[in-house]
Amino acid sequence: MAGNTFGAVFKVTTWGESHGTALGAVIDGCPPGLELTAEMIQQELEKRRPGKGGATSPRSEPDQVQIMSGTFKPEGCRCEKTTGTPISLVIFNKDAHSKSYSHLQDVFRPGHGDLTYQAKYGIRDHRGGGRASARETAARVAAGAVAKQLLSQYNMSVQAYTVALGGINTVKRELSQVADNRLFCPDNEAAERMEARVKEVRRQGDTVGGIVEIRASCLPGLGEPVFDKLDGELARALMSIGAVKGVEIGAGFGAAAMLGSENNDPISPSGFLGNNSGGILAGISNGEDLVVRVAVKPIPSIHKEQQSVNLQNEPVEIKVGGRHDISAIPRIIPVCEAMVRLTLADHLLRQLALQENRQPK
Amino acid sequence: MAGNTFGAVFKVTTWGESHGTALGAVIDGCPPGLELTAEMIQQELEKRRPGKGGATSPRSEPDQVQIMSGTFKPEGCRCEKTTGTPISLVIFNKDAHSKSYSHLQDVFRPGHGDLTYQAKYGIRDHRGGGRASARETAARVAAGAVAKQLLSQYNMSVQAYTVALGGINTVKRELSQVADNRLFCPDNEAAERMEARVKEVRRQGDTVGGIVEIRASCLPGLGEPVFDKLDGELARALMSIGAVKGVEIGAGFGAAAMLGSENNDPISPSGFLGNNSGGILAGISNGEDLVVRVAVKPIPSIHKEQQSVNLQNEPVEIKVGGRHDISAIPRIIPVCEAMVRLTLADHLLRQLALQENRQPK
Amino acid sequence: MAGNTFGAVFKVTTWGESHGTALGAVIDGCPPGLELTAEMIQQELEKRRPGKGGATSPRSEPDQVQIMSGTFKPEGCRCEKTTGTPISLVIFNKDAHSKSYSHLQDVFRPGHGDLTYQAKYGIRDHRGGGRASARETAARVAAGAVAKQLLSQYNMSVQAYTVALGGINTVKRELSQVADNRLFCPDNEAAERMEARVKEVRRQGDTVGGIVEIRASCLPGLGEPVFDKLDGELARALMSIGAVKGVEIGAGFGAAAMLGSENNDPISPSGFLGNNSGGILAGISNGEDLVVRVAVKPIPSIHKEQQSVNLQNEPVEIKVGGRHDISAIPRIIPVCEAMVRLTLADHLLRQLALQENRQPK
Amino acid sequence: MAGNTFGAVFKVTTWGESHGTALGAVIDGCPPGLELTAEMIQQELEKRRPGKGGATSPRSEPDQVQIMSGTFKPEGCRCEKTTGTPISLVIFNKDAHSKSYSHLQDVFRPGHGDLTYQAKYGIRDHRGGGRASARETAARVAAGAVAKQLLSQYNMSVQAYTVALGGINTVKRELSQVADNRLFCPDNEAAERMEARVKEVRRQGDTVGGIVEIRASCLPGLGEPVFDKLDGELARALMSIGAVKGVEIGAGFGAAAMLGSENNDPISPSGFLGNNSGGILAGISNGEDLVVRVAVKPIPSIHKEQQSVNLQNEPVEIKVGGRHDISAIPRIIPVCEAMVRLTLADHLLRQLALQENRQPK
Repeated sequence: MAGNTFGAVFKVTTWGESHGTALGAVIDGCPPGLELTAEMIQQELEKRRPGKGGATSPRSEPDQVQIMSGTFKPEGCRCEKTTGTPISLVIFNKDAHSKSYSHLQDVFRPGHGDLTYQAKYGIRDHRGGGRASARETAARVAAGAVAKQLLSQYNMSVQAYTVALGGINTVKRELSQVADNRLFCPDNEAAERMEARVKEVRRQGDTVGGIVEIRASCLPGLGEPVFDKLDGELARALMSIGAVKGVEIGAGFGAAAMLGSENNDPISPSGFLGNNSGGILAGISNGEDLVVRVAVKPIPSIHKEQQSVNLQNEPVEIKVGGRHDISAIPRIIPVCEAMVRLTLADHLLRQLALQENRQPK
Repeated sequence: MAGNTFGAVFKVTTWGESHGTALGAVIDGCPPGLELTAEMIQQELEKRRPGKGGATSPRSEPDQVQIMSGTFKPEGCRCEKTTGTPISLVIFNKDAHSKSYSHLQDVFRPGHGDLTYQAKYGIRDHRGGGRASARETAARVAAGAVAKQLLSQYNMSVQAYTVALGGINTVKRELSQVADNRLFCPDNEAAERMEARVKEVRRQGDTVGGIVEIRASCLPGLGEPVFDKLDGELARALMSIGAVKGVEIGAGFGAAAMLGSENNDPISPSGFLGNNSGGILAGISNGEDLVVRVAVKPIPSIHKEQQSVNLQNEPVEIKVGGRHDISAIPRIIPVCEAMVRLTLADHLLRQLALQENRQPK
Repeated sequence: MAGNTFGAVFKVTTWGESHGTALGAVIDGCPPGLELTAEMIQQELEKRRPGKGGATSPRSEPDQVQIMSGTFKPEGCRCEKTTGTPISLVIFNKDAHSKSYSHLQDVFRPGHGDLTYQAKYGIRDHRGGGRASARETAARVAAGAVAKQLLSQYNMSVQAYTVALGGINTVKRELSQVADNRLFCPDNEAAERMEARVKEVRRQGDTVGGIVEIRASCLPGLGEPVFDKLDGELARALMSIGAVKGVEIGAGFGAAAMLGSENNDPISPSGFLGNNSGGILAGISNGEDLVVRVAVKPIPSIHKEQQSVNLQNEPVEIKVGGRHDISAIPRIIPVCEAMVRLTLADHLLRQLALQENRQPK
Repeated sequence: MAGNTFGAVFKVTTWGESHGTALGAVIDGCPPGLELTAEMIQQELEKRRPGKGGATSPRSEPDQVQIMSGTFKPEGCRCEKTTGTPISLVIFNKDAHSKSYSHLQDVFRPGHGDLTYQAKYGIRDHRGGGRASARETAARVAAGAVAKQLLSQYNMSVQAYTVALGGINTVKRELSQVADNRLFCPDNEAAERMEARVKEVRRQGDTVGGIVEIRASCLPGLGEPVFDKLDGELARALMSIGAVKGVEIGAGFGAAAMLGSENNDPISPSGFLGNNSGGILAGISNGEDLVVRVAVKPIPSIHKEQQSVNLQNEPVEIKVGGRHDISAIPRIIPVCEAMVRLTLADHLLRQLALQENRQPK
């Protein structure tokens, strides 16, 4: 049973390979009546496109999204609205240089999914990583933009930002500064040092990891015990992004060294007096901001010789060519936002149904 | 849409409240022909029962499991075998002291799910935490024992152990020592210091957190990109355990500060030369041991005055009575094993189907 | 992937074999706050119990249901209410005469699932048909009683009745007469002739089939195109009952011979002027009564010699012993009602979620 | 929770409206290594295209399918193969005359889903029926062609044909004659009379219904009791086609009037001696041919005045224009085949997984 669908009620199925004809997503379960245009989705996709310098790749895809179905402009409305039927989004690939991958057809790049895809499927589209390419996340971002429209109806919003990159940690968390720098970093000063670190590593032909924090305002009551708890669902959503190797909520791993009396957030009539819980208690949102951090591993495509094997399991030395980012940050930022949005949209609908059912007429 | 079912093919639905009549699990999708007796399940449940001292609670449940359906002893077989029909497991509650919770009927304990359950459902069984009680995990452990039987057919095994408790970290990872101490700690010396720390904290009326590591041998090819990747599924499975606030795979958060050249595991004809990946590449197991760590928060039930509110949102001071553990460790250990087993059993079946389909006859 | 769960939101998982320890159902997704007692469920189970004569079997099970979880009696409420957590229902088997089946251990009864269960699973509990026994439907009826509680909140009700038995058709459809006779027949006169026919056939050691019609009042808007349409879902639900070999909605097979101008139901401001559609248009309920009919095959357990094979595929002559009904009617009546209720409860929740989402606050 | 995905393992999600940009399907769960080209899919789509006369509509869509993802041509292979990743199929709409529907914007056509879509979603794309259009089935046929490739590996095949049209029944079932006439009728003589009947009805501005039978060769063991039985799944699959109002398996409604001794199929060492069961016992295929019949209602778009209401619930007289078929037959034939293929592909994979698991290595 394959796993290309996300969500139980707000269901998103993505498809597409890095060097195939197109990528896309089908959203089944989006409520009717939401305003939705291609421009709204395009905005989110722009955040994910490679920038002009810094840590990002020179492959330049326009990433123009088309809405193929699921919206309709009723007479007298200012723009298209969702109709409750499946929304199909397609992004055609334009700038695919498949040739630059032909020398990698028979070898397994360390840190990539080449070997595991071969082991699993017995066949693989090796061009640009095929389905395992980070390019796949374009479809997630497009779908996430639809979720954003839904969440905005309930005043729920999501923001991701960089809190560590290449071993440099932010000192401040000034969310107002996130838009100031190319790294989506809430600390302009730290951002400068991160940029310098990235340049240095690029010269060495190496890559760096980092940490992204995601903060979301969230209605209370979201999350479905005991297996589909909100924290577990967020963890799965974020860990499904290629580069992510760890997820923590609120105090996270820090809580492991705390006393109960330190870690418990006291409750007052005006709300919680602390947020070590990261906005989630017993797997259900408590109305405080959700706070999640993810560990992002360094991009495995480095310009250094590496030891590996080929399809015949013979030892080879390889040096990965192609156009690559130095770090998954900052392009992973909108992807993290998208995955959190998709998770929240799904659980919002799951909870709204419950509330509705609580008061039968 | 509620969330009490785990797994897509090896599907487990659990039910039951802390102070209800019984707890249980129904497993739908277990292959036929596996040997399975109540004794096999009981063995795993014993690991989860409160011990005689240390960090665990004085509530003493016999936790006798009954297999209600799904097995049959064919003539000439030495024991019952699964038949491919649903396996229903029931554990009756015996030692429930509901009375000791009546003073908590109208107040929300900090760090617990009282407030969020009320917000979500508008009604709750407050006795012992109801469905949000750690007692619920007995059903997970019972179901995990069935998964263990399946995994053993494929030589897959899972072991969890304590690597930090109350701020004390293990220095060694001698898996042979795990059975030597009550904390399932692979470092007997550290275990002693942990026990001392727990005693000290108990005197203070406080509780402690810790870190559990889980290691599993695993066939290559398990995990279903792009949303049901093995690491994401493990993260969700483990984060669905009440006390868990973070999950990391392999190098985990450590990878965030590494260079690509450090983090990539080189590949040789005899296997990977390193395991920073924790046995998972692109969401698919690579044949190396899976290595996962979870952050366990301190038990929120402390014997100290805490600030909170009641159902009428009035401020109250509460002191939680009842019988409680000082730490979720070590009783969380078999629960972590169970959740990893359930995840692997599910993905094993998903992958076996794929392999079978690869070679049509 | 096994198939013992019904419903996408109001999810019911049943378990249990005819001669095992118990049968049961777990309902995950029932909204909180519904009044629910064992007595309410017992009432429905009574309708399914063998009667004193007529077409039914002498096996006499008390079928006492226990609610193991998922309900709670808040202070000041007159009875238990659902809490939104899984509802576990258990019915212990009492009157199982497993011995009377031992001679059938190695042979395949014609018309039964013996051969197909063996082919599918490679192992089977042959006693009383094991999981394939009609006894399994007790769990469905119990779960259906919970659905009934939910539907009653929305003034939706379901009634099944016999319209043909042993070749005798009802002339009238006086629903007030359904309670008058043991066959749940809306035509007392026809019921008498049916009873006579059943007696006659019983003497011959044979069995008979019939047709059941189900009528339900239903809110408009239920059903989820394009694959989970209400008619398709009802068809699947009803066809999943052992003896059912055909399902038709509204005019059903009769529509095949009609002209469009005859079959179309005209619409007036006060509703539809006809119900050839059976209350469903384009897979969505239109507010008219749902009308569904199912073809019930004769019970395959006859007291006549039949030609078959054994496990070694050798020819055998068998005569089925044990205690059996002459017709699945009338005991199938409450089962049909249960399956329609479960279907409607599931789709009601699916639709309520949609309505809620249509008017974000 | 919306319902545009079909299948549990071989999962197909369709999208698209009659007059939108395109229609399509995403298949997630197709095993890797199957040969698959656009031509193979196109062949099936051709069967569904309107013919030059007879019962079909003059709207002429080329229905050219594109494979957007999920296939790859490995070096040395003669054609593309599936890779185990999602297969995205897109068919662009070309010949949409949306204008001819503008007068229907505010009125509900009898027998159509106009009223129920409005009731359910509160908004609808009225052009050509939107999502409720029979044009949606093009995506089903495309997906069914992929299922056909999978089934052929296991020597499983499916054939649908007309056994009644406009009140005229076939006398013979000569499957060799199915290809001889435009109505896919296994009785050339009956086909001629059906064509005459269709012409006559067309002149009257009316439409006709009919009955389609589907026959499939099938491995034993397919179907998942107790809720996902093969007969129930087939019923749901076929009933999800717009015009279908009834489904019966084997003897179907005929079984209702039979004795058990007549209806039971005796078993011999060389197989079943009869097929009243239609190839399914206890919800599991028995190795005999599957035989299913569906009742097809007359197309509701008639060229006669009909009584209805508008959005304001005022009475209106309407006469449906546009380009319409006289009968859903024969264009429904490949759709029936597609739905049966999708059902069998799904259950084949579900059963293969089980067989594999039965013999762990």
